[in-house]
This record gives sequence, C-alpha cells and structure tokens, in this order.
Amino acid sequence: MTKIKIGLIGLGTVGSGVFKCLVNNPKAEIVQIAVKDIEKPRNIDGLDKTKLTTDVMSVAQNPDIDILIEVIGGVNPAFDIIKTALESGKHVVTANKELLAKHGSELFELAKNKNRLILYEAAIGGGIPIVMPIKTTLCGNKINKITAILNGTTNYILTKMDTENASYEETLKEAQKLGYAETDPTGDVEGLDAKYKITTLSTISFKEKIDLDKVYAEGITKIQAEDMKNANEFGYKIKLIALAQRVGEKIDVRVHPMLISKKHPLANINDVTNGVMISGHPVGDVMLSGPGAGEFPTASSVIGDVLSLVEEFDGNPLPIMQCHHEKIAQMLDISETKNKYYISINAKNNFGVIESLGRIFAHNEISISIILQKGLQSDNTANVVVITEECFENNMQSAICELEKEDCVKRINSLIRVTD
Amino acid sequence: MTKIKIGLIGLGTVGSGVFKCLVNNPKAEIVQIAVKDIEKPRNIDGLDKTKLTTDVMSVAQNPDIDILIEVIGGVNPAFDIIKTALESGKHVVTANKELLAKHGSELFELAKNKNRLILYEAAIGGGIPIVMPIKTTLCGNKINKITAILNGTTNYILTKMDTENASYEETLKEAQKLGYAETDPTGDVEGLDAKYKITTLSTISFKEKIDLDKVYAEGITKIQAEDMKNANEFGYKIKLIALAQRVGEKIDVRVHPMLISKKHPLANINDVTNGVMISGHPVGDVMLSGPGAGEFPTASSVIGDVLSLVEEFDGNPLPIMQCHHEKIAQMLDISETKNKYYISINAKNNFGVIESLGRIFAHNEISISIILQKGLQSDNTANVVVITEECFENNMQSAICELEKEDCVKRINSLIRVTD
Repeated sequence: MTKIKIGLIGLGTVGSGVFKCLVNNPKAEIVQIAVKDIEKPRNIDGLDKTKLTTDVMSVAQNPDIDILIEVIGGVNPAFDIIKTALESGKHVVTANKELLAKHGSELFELAKNKNRLILYEAAIGGGIPIVMPIKTTLCGNKINKITAILNGTTNYILTKMDTENASYEETLKEAQKLGYAETDPTGDVEGLDAKYKITTLSTISFKEKIDLDKVYAEGITKIQAEDMKNANEFGYKIKLIALAQRVGEKIDVRVHPMLISKKHPLANINDVTNGVMISGHPVGDVMLSGPGAGEFPTASSVIGDVLSLVEEFDGNPLPIMQCHHEKIAQMLDISETKNKYYISINAKNNFGVIESLGRIFAHNEISISIILQKGLQSDNTANVVVITEECFENNMQSAICELEKEDCVKRINSLIRVTD
Repeated sequence: MTKIKIGLIGLGTVGSGVFKCLVNNPKAEIVQIAVKDIEKPRNIDGLDKTKLTTDVMSVAQNPDIDILIEVIGGVNPAFDIIKTALESGKHVVTANKELLAKHGSELFELAKNKNRLILYEAAIGGGIPIVMPIKTTLCGNKINKITAILNGTTNYILTKMDTENASYEETLKEAQKLGYAETDPTGDVEGLDAKYKITTLSTISFKEKIDLDKVYAEGITKIQAEDMKNANEFGYKIKLIALAQRVGEKIDVRVHPMLISKKHPLANINDVTNGVMISGHPVGDVMLSGPGAGEFPTASSVIGDVLSLVEEFDGNPLPIMQCHHEKIAQMLDISETKNKYYISINAKNNFGVIESLGRIFAHNEISISIILQKGLQSDNTANVVVITEECFENNMQSAICELEKEDCVKRINSLIRVTD
C-alpha cells in the first residue's frame, strides 16, 4: 500500500505536535517540511533533516504531495501558500483562524472549483470536535444559536480574577509569566481571536457568508474585580462570550464579556478550556468542551482532518465510519478493577465497631480516607459512613463478607464506587 | 437531480421525528415505510399512506432503496431486516443500541464484505455527536478512558432524588407518571440500556471487539436518600456511570452508580441530559453533552447519518465538508441587538441618583430587574449596580450618554451584557 504524502508548513509548537503524532502512521507520511531556519536545534524524534526546506512554495507546488498542512498562522504568506496548494490539486488542512475569517470565502470557492477540500477543525476550539459534528451529525439541523467560549487566554484571566478576586492588570501579568498570555496580548484580550473563530463557526452553522468587519468585538480589559464580585452575588460568572444567532432574517454575531448565569453550562468552563453550546432544531442544545489550544490538542484536530481525508483516497463511501474490528478485547473482570468506595454501615450501639472496621479493612489492604459516625438512631443503632482510598474490588467484596459476619454490624446499607 | 431513496422501518416516536425532518429534503426521499398497522390514526403532515406497508422484508429487499433506516429497536426482527438490507446492497442507519451491542460484530463484518456502511449515531447519546467525532476528528487519538452518563431515565431519577431528597421508589413512580420512565423500568434502572451503549462506544474507542457478557452492570435501585445526603456532604454527586478504560493490556468496561466529585463536569449533567467525557492522547479531555433521547434529538442524529451518506453518493471526497456558501448573510448591527445589561455607576453622595436612573431608563424603554446600592466609600461616593431586563443596545447607549451628563453621576464603572 502506498502511503498518502503530506507536506507540512511550519514546525513550531503545533507543527511539532503534528509531526510527532503522524511519524509512525501506517497510511500517511510527511515527505517535506517548510521551516524558516533549517539549522535551528530541534529535539524531535524521527525527524529527517533532509526533508526540511526553506522554500515554502516548492512544498505547496510539489506534485508528489496529496495533502498540505499549514500551521504557521497569519494571513501572509499562508494565503498564497494555500492558494498555490489548491491550484496544484492538493487538499489542505489548516489551523489558521485569522486567514479563514478574512479570506475563507475566496479560498473555499477555489477549493470547490478544484474539487479539493480545506479542513480546519483545529482553527476553532483546538482539540474539541466542532466543525465535523456541525457538518456531519448535526447537518440536518437548523442551527439557531451558538454561545461559546473560544479563547483560552481570556478565559484563564477571567477565571483567575474570579477565584482570586484580583484585578485584570495583575492577572494578565501572571498569565504572561506562566505563558498563558503573549507579550503583546492584544489579539486575545481585545476579542480578535474569538472574533475570527466565531465568524467561521457562524458561516458553517448558518450556511451563509459572514462579513468579519460586521462582527462586533469587545475585549475584557475593562472588567473590574468589583464586577466579578457583584456578578457572583447576583448568581452569575463573567465570561468572554462569542455569540451567533438568528434574529428574524438577520444574523447577529458578536464577541463581548457577558454575565452568564451560574446554571448555564458555559459558566463552569474554566481556565484555558473552551466550550461551545449549539442550539438547533431538531437537536435542542448540545454542548462540546475541551482544550482550546496547545501543541497536542491542536495536533489532535489536524490529524483527525488528515486521516479523514486519507481514508477517502480509496474511493469507498465514508470508509472512516466502518466499524469492523479484527481484535477481540481482553476484558478486565469487575473483581480485578480498582476503585475508591463509599460504604454505609448500620452498626449496633456496641463497643468495637470502628475497631472491627479498621481490622477487616487493614488485612484486606484497604485504606480509609474519610470516616464519619452519625449519632444514635431511635433503634439504638448508628450509621457509620466510610470513603476508602483506591483498592481492589475483590478485596472490598471480602471485607464486606467479613463485616456482615461481625456481631456489631447490623446491616451494610450501601456500597457505591467513587470517582474524583 | 435524482433523490437518494430511503426506506424507513418503524413510524413510532423516533420514526415520526425522522419522517418530519426529511419530508422536504431536496436530496433524499422516503419512498417506503414499514409499520405494524397501516390503519392506525397518525397525525403526520405530508405522510402519503400509499407508502406504508406491513411487509417489512419487502422494504429491506426493495432494489430501488439506497439507504434503510431502522428505528423499531430490539433484536428481532431488526437483526434479520438489517442483514437483508445489507445483503441487498443498502447502507443502514439505525438507532438500535441493543442489536449493535449483541450482534454488532456480525453485522459490521457483513457490512464490510458488502462494502456498505451501518451508521448509528442515534444509538448512543441520542442527539449528541459522539460516534462521528470519535471516528473522524478524534481518530488520531489513543483513547484511554470514557466516562459517561448514557441513560436519561436513571439520570432524571438520581437528579430528583438529590434535589428533593426523595427515595428511589417515590421518584421512580413520579418519573413513570411524567413519562420519563417506562411501566417496566428494568432495562433503564438495572443499567442494561447504558451497558448496551458503552459496549459499542468502547468498541469504536479502543478498536477492539467488546464482549457484552463481560461488561458488568449494576443499577440504581439500591441507592438511598441517605447516600445522596452523605455524598453531598463529602463533595460528591451520585450518578449512574458507564466507564470504559485501558488497564495495562486489558479493557475495563462497566456500568454502576458512582459518587462523582462535584468538580467533575459529569456531576453537573442533570435530568435527562447525557454526557460523555473522552480522555485520550494527544487531545486530553473532551466533553460532549446534550439530549440523550426523545423524538427530535434522536431524529437529528439519524438524519445526520443519512445526509452524510447521501453526500457521498456523488463520488467526491468528503463532499459534506465543503464550506462554499452562496448566500451572503444580512448582519444585525450591534446597536440593533437586544440584551440584558449589568451597569455599575459611581455616584456622588447626592439626592436624586436613583431618581435620575429611573427617569433616564424609563424614557429609553429600559426596565430594571435588580438594583443594589452599596454603602458610601471613603471619597463620599457610592456604587450603584443595576441589572436590566432585555432592551435594545442603542437605547442602552443613549441612556449611558444621558447618565454621564447627570450631575450626580461621577463615572460609569462598567457596562456588561448579561445572559441567563
């Protein structure tokens, strides 16, 4: 089987992640990589330096390449690279939200004319599947509204301002120190990054071209610690919300801070996590969330697009959706599993209940994390509630059998497994 | 353009939803529908009774049909119907979780041999996109763990037991009255429904066959109101969790109640909503949630599968992923949008601040929902915080201009839009 040949433009954070995840793929092979500086020290396993080139257009035009991955970002020279790649018959996978928001219309038209695809799952919401679900599973819906947190930097700042009751200025400085915000944070904190993403997201949701210049964007720089406090008192959180909705025949797309009810699922999307709520008919409300940026989450989406395309090269319908599997799983029995446990025991008002518990748990290799004895009940018994550390299910079952035989134990009320 | 021809098996709740959503589709047409009773009164717009038949096998064998939709559920006769449809060259879309968990392996092998697809997005998590994201966007990941709430009935019961501190028995009765639980609730409350779903979900996640008989399932019938109370005290909720994870070379798949930390996103998935957390490399943790059942959410997934297949019939690679759009959206200007607002005003310690606010808001057609004046500050000013009812952005902007001119207003601290 010949491997599908891939050209990679950019070997920075995202590019390295993509390379590492594709290096041993049986179906696809990166044959050429465009970089700014070939001699720059890189610590990437399996990287063959002879594949590096500074001549980016030679990659875009290389007739041996089937799919071009662009992960340099920005409009120039990405625009020309992608146009050239499409014109020379390649499919394109990109993470470039700015380029798509500014020139998507032209590029998608070119792709259509060339019967080639531009896939860009990584451009919106990093590792979260959003574009594919909207274009496939949800394609029968009339989407009426998208409410989203699409920028990790600002969500991190707002989360910290909230939990630490800190000012915008000091939180930004801390975020810059930790690498969550750039030295020039304008693109994030003024809402431009979220504006690019919601523009493309609303284009595919409403199936109409959205003019970036008509999308209102307001950042988070004016939010005060006092506002956070007031919002909390009133039952809200403050988030930078990217909103897109149908209003009559018109489309309303904008990015600005909002007080959002604590009951709304987006109010619980914290730190650098992103979240997208999609409301449509017939589906109702669907919420997708996960890591919105970073080397590996972004690589996950790039590779998902690449492999979805790769599967199509054999000409079968949606081959990637086949569910035939050769291997039969070796299954772990419930008795072999490890869990934490919650146990509620009804005990007689005797001496020795806690002693019995301690002894039986100890020789079954079970550690106790929390123990709580509640006061006596009218029948002269008491409920003892325990949460254990992680232990084997079969040890716990033995312990329960032994406990049931103890004089002081009247009944095991409940045994429920626990997860954090 | 000839429409893709569809046969529909079943016209109950889900079948009706599918029919309603496909009736005006320009690319696909339901040409035959198998039902138990042709004369049963049905109130479905656009339903042509001549398309109804009780001869289900004639639909499965009909050579004019390209895609068969099966929404009757259960193993018999669905198994024979789907086998026949595949053997006669049809693609199949099904919502049948029990059939897939019990006989998926055989059916997927037959589909592979016939070069046809079985799609079943609706079988797991109702309207939530799960199968497609795992098979496409996330396909480059090694999935290590799935933690999920996959049964709406039990999640509804557990949510009510928690919020109303009620017993399992009385909550079940209430759920049955409201139609959220069946007269014989065994399949749901004993965890069988969730077991079917996690079996198929772990098969596609781990790419190995999972033996249904080796999946442990324990229901919610023994959970006591007291356990709910204790769990809350310790910082947990109790949920019926479907769990699938890699443990060394083995696979651990099971369904049972768990105490789950309130900080875990699944702890906030309430009522009939379903949620799936997928953990893998490189993506990290991704969470998908939404309506797990019901006529329209289930129809949404069935139609998503059907239309994804329909697009493939023209032979282009992933045509459904094309992003070319003809129509240019008519955009709503920010000034025309309607919002609720949070306003923080720094006012001098004068008479008349509240009066000015009231007057200016009133003639700009803005109603006040919450108003809070905090005590005097050291500079002899006070902050007045208001949350309004919904009003037009341009009215709010006029009100802000007018307020800024008032003697008693020192400064507008903040203006932030609000969503519930």
